[in-house]
Amino acid sequence: MPKLDLDAIAEVNRTGYPSPHDQAVQGRWYRRLAPAGGLTEFGASLVRLDPGAWSSQRHWHEGEDELLVMLEGEAILAEDSGDTLLRAGDVAAFPKGVRNGHHLRNDSDRPCRFLVVGGGPQSGGSYSDIDMLFTADGRYTRKDGTPLDATRV
Amino acid sequence: MPKLDLDAIAEVNRTGYPSPHDQAVQGRWYRRLAPAGGLTEFGASLVRLDPGAWSSQRHWHEGEDELLVMLEGEAILAEDSGDTLLRAGDVAAFPKGVRNGHHLRNDSDRPCRFLVVGGGPQSGGSYSDIDMLFTADGRYTRKDGTPLDATRV
Repeated sequence: MPKLDLDAIAEVNRTGYPSPHDQAVQGRWYRRLAPAGGLTEFGASLVRLDPGAWSSQRHWHEGEDELLVMLEGEAILAEDSGDTLLRAGDVAAFPKGVRNGHHLRNDSDRPCRFLVVGGGPQSGGSYSDIDMLFTADGRYTRKDGTPLDATRV
Repeated sequence: MPKLDLDAIAEVNRTGYPSPHDQAVQGRWYRRLAPAGGLTEFGASLVRLDPGAWSSQRHWHEGEDELLVMLEGEAILAEDSGDTLLRAGDVAAFPKGVRNGHHLRNDSDRPCRFLVVGGGPQSGGSYSDIDMLFTADGRYTRKDGTPLDATRV
């Protein structure tokens, strides 16, 4: 049925990031909504960040748009120009190809939750604060192209 | 900047529905988020339904997926199989091509708000309860193809 049974969707904290970049996202728990809902035209996840967790390494996508809406709690949206507080009801949009890396950081003392949507052709992109990028075919490399032993999930 | 200034985005109740089908959506107020955020890979709207308002006539899309998350208040999700109550935090998904018409109806006594995302190639679709369909090029017709003097907005 259209209403998703969220409790029936596995909540995971999987990441493909190689060590030590995986540490910051250990407290990022997410449910993949699109497969559960039968959607194929875009991706969507319901994400919980425990206190201290990051949503990802700070990154941007070459060919995918992203949109998120905060549902509960608060988090810091970090980007090149600085930090912005996001509270429940706030919406943020990240157009493809804009090389302004972003992520959310839960600096508060309680969990926060948001829904994030991503759409567009699978593409590469890069990380702003570490020597790593991601390729359209799901690999991680250093910025000079040296392969890293890691696969995006 | 990525955080959208929601107050700066016009909230409208425009509809292209011909009379009398436009009456049920007069209390549907929405902000188009994708243009404001510079996104082109999918559409997104923040919608407020005043008490009594419908999100749309009950419909389905041939080629577009839809996903919504309730942010505040509650509404009835109506589909072929009956009604389901949606409350804040609930998520519903509508895969393209599933001919199970859906809409939200605010039967409560206070406004509700939700975020809805739609993605996929512009496509046609149809309305479950009235003699009308919509075409991929933005027209409304009767189900026998007779044109109606109305244009989708």
